[in-house]
Amino acid sequence: MNWCLFQLRTEAKRLSAKIVTLTSDFGSRDPYVAEMKAVILSICPDAVIVDVSHEIEKFNIRIGAFMLASAVPYFPKDTVHVAVVDPDVGTERRSILVQTQRGFFVGPDNGLLILAAEKQGIISIHEITNPKLMLSSVSCTFHGRDVFAPAAAHLANEVPPSDFGPEIRDVVKPKFRKVKISKGALIGEVLHVDGFGNVITNVNEKYMTQLHSGAWITAELPNRNLRLKFGKTYAEAQPKEALALIGSHGYVELAINQGNAAGTFHAKAGDMIKLTLSS
Amino acid sequence: MNWCLFQLRTEAKRLSAKIVTLTSDFGSRDPYVAEMKAVILSICPDAVIVDVSHEIEKFNIRIGAFMLASAVPYFPKDTVHVAVVDPDVGTERRSILVQTQRGFFVGPDNGLLILAAEKQGIISIHEITNPKLMLSSVSCTFHGRDVFAPAAAHLANEVPPSDFGPEIRDVVKPKFRKVKISKGALIGEVLHVDGFGNVITNVNEKYMTQLHSGAWITAELPNRNLRLKFGKTYAEAQPKEALALIGSHGYVELAINQGNAAGTFHAKAGDMIKLTLSS
Amino acid sequence: MNWCLFQLRTEAKRLSAKIVTLTSDFGSRDPYVAEMKAVILSICPDAVIVDVSHEIEKFNIRIGAFMLASAVPYFPKDTVHVAVVDPDVGTERRSILVQTQRGFFVGPDNGLLILAAEKQGIISIHEITNPKLMLSSVSCTFHGRDVFAPAAAHLANEVPPSDFGPEIRDVVKPKFRKVKISKGALIGEVLHVDGFGNVITNVNEKYMTQLHSGAWITAELPNRNLRLKFGKTYAEAQPKEALALIGSHGYVELAINQGNAAGTFHAKAGDMIKLTLSS
Repeated sequence: MNWCLFQLRTEAKRLSAKIVTLTSDFGSRDPYVAEMKAVILSICPDAVIVDVSHEIEKFNIRIGAFMLASAVPYFPKDTVHVAVVDPDVGTERRSILVQTQRGFFVGPDNGLLILAAEKQGIISIHEITNPKLMLSSVSCTFHGRDVFAPAAAHLANEVPPSDFGPEIRDVVKPKFRKVKISKGALIGEVLHVDGFGNVITNVNEKYMTQLHSGAWITAELPNRNLRLKFGKTYAEAQPKEALALIGSHGYVELAINQGNAAGTFHAKAGDMIKLTLSS
Repeated sequence: MNWCLFQLRTEAKRLSAKIVTLTSDFGSRDPYVAEMKAVILSICPDAVIVDVSHEIEKFNIRIGAFMLASAVPYFPKDTVHVAVVDPDVGTERRSILVQTQRGFFVGPDNGLLILAAEKQGIISIHEITNPKLMLSSVSCTFHGRDVFAPAAAHLANEVPPSDFGPEIRDVVKPKFRKVKISKGALIGEVLHVDGFGNVITNVNEKYMTQLHSGAWITAELPNRNLRLKFGKTYAEAQPKEALALIGSHGYVELAINQGNAAGTFHAKAGDMIKLTLSS
Repeated sequence: MNWCLFQLRTEAKRLSAKIVTLTSDFGSRDPYVAEMKAVILSICPDAVIVDVSHEIEKFNIRIGAFMLASAVPYFPKDTVHVAVVDPDVGTERRSILVQTQRGFFVGPDNGLLILAAEKQGIISIHEITNPKLMLSSVSCTFHGRDVFAPAAAHLANEVPPSDFGPEIRDVVKPKFRKVKISKGALIGEVLHVDGFGNVITNVNEKYMTQLHSGAWITAELPNRNLRLKFGKTYAEAQPKEALALIGSHGYVELAINQGNAAGTFHAKAGDMIKLTLSS
């Protein structure tokens, strides 16, 4: 009977490992997210559903891609990630399913999934065309509920990707500027302003390895030129004092200790930023 | 032992099928929703709790009823739905439990539950009076935590409805205007403005069957008369262009592709709307 | 085989009893909360995660402590509570784990946990220093994900508190004013304004036992002197009429039936309040 209990635990762990994450621009007022969860739990009652964010700026695929790529590395293997920022729902834009070395991604073919998926190593991409793996009635305006949620639940139930539709290769890529190095300056962009007002750039920590903590840098934003100490954490600056640091996802960010840097510096996602080592 | 594993999966599915949904006007800042979840999990540790929305406009029973009725059809059989928009908490308004062909509803007797419950076919309605199925101390201001949450958890634990209190018949009905047809026009109302600014009306798709996609309609709102193409999905219109369509719940809605129709047209829930086929 | 099913249920209940709650000032836009959940589920796949609130006023430890202490009593025994309002992350402020008679608390040593923990009876406090029970790479800016989430998951997996680091005794206490009685008046403070605009004070119901429902009291706020009926529930007042009552957590609160008391009376957390029995 001990063997039975051992089986039980193994099985329980297997059952409980079916994590499905949701990312969207649906907000929290409407029942749209709940309808997706209802569909998922109807098909895969053992799914453990985790919200990444439903407060992506409406129709902003780049921010959605960035958010998804930030969160995804912390989830266990075989997690199924559903993302819906989908201005072209109901048109001929395709619904896709991406299998990676670490899990699955389901959503529209508009670039939203690919940043996160590429980081995990893409194995295959399938278009979702099989009506048997969708809701019986598919609306023109809410594929999150009618196409992506059922696909995610069937994936969690271990339906193989090839059952969903034909393999494809030419997907839409998200458009992010690459960091340029020019005359000793790093030229990048603001990826995201978080809820604390921290200004997160696309400048990876790898670019900053020569810089020691305590160095000074100059940051040029469209509306402000700043000279900032380069620190390790917010509280190294005085309260309401600005600084630059490597944020928790490994990108350079501008912050104000216990303040709102984006508000103070009038910075927003998409802004160009130029970083120079200050003398 | 294969039989044991089969039993295990059957049992695991049974256990995991105890879905409890929550709908309220509590917002997300306060610990009120968490307290309801704590009570539910204390009584029914296997409950899978899904938030429908906690951003119902405060005290707006009609919006709550609409939201609940929108989400409920997607949940599996035997789901227990708790809803709390409850301006008369602590007065003589009754607490009720509705059993339907598809599940259960728990909340105040103020109309909030009945729209959704009637769509599922009501079997019985019981007043909740049994103090043994409430928290040991019931506050006058928070029946969501002290009465409805425990009732939902006991229902999930398969306590029969008759244990909660006497069967009743005369419940409060929600007040929605019926659509009128007058001189070739459909006269209805705005049910809800969603987070995208889409203006959702009470005009069901059944009224629109003669209309082909691509037809033009006139929509009269209190603050605006509009001539709109009748389409299938948002992206049929140019970005920032308005259109009318059947939304994902089967009602006519006015939308602006990648824009905010309610903001642009100054429309809000409760507004009268008159739809005419345009020449 | 009945015995096997009995074991199964017992085991299932044991497995499902691993509740982990999260409280923070992270807001709902960013993926920070999802990253914490991902880490918890990676280490303890059976955890049931419940959000208390992520809308604590940024950096406001007192409000966080109050919110946590409000919600915690409703959770079952052995719940693990994680809280992160952490302006000094990455400095020498310690990470701590508090074991109580009813469960566990994990978070920064800044007073956030202690109000809730003391109500449950503190058994021991350990500093979290063991790198084996943290993520392999710990950032300087996000200990919620890298230190507290793994600690909570390991606690849910029944790792003993002593494995996390040395026992300590001198923790930071939260700063709340005590209620003073002076010349027949109770002098306290506003603890919190909830999403309904209810003004929640630190004056416990125990101070109000002599007061019968229907009595009149005078409430002096910095911006307003009020004469209010002392009632039992909001709907005892006329719509838009103010009253005082004992709220659902046992504290005196000022409210307006179907209105916003804090907005109307310009009251905010931290305001002094003086209550007197009115003639």
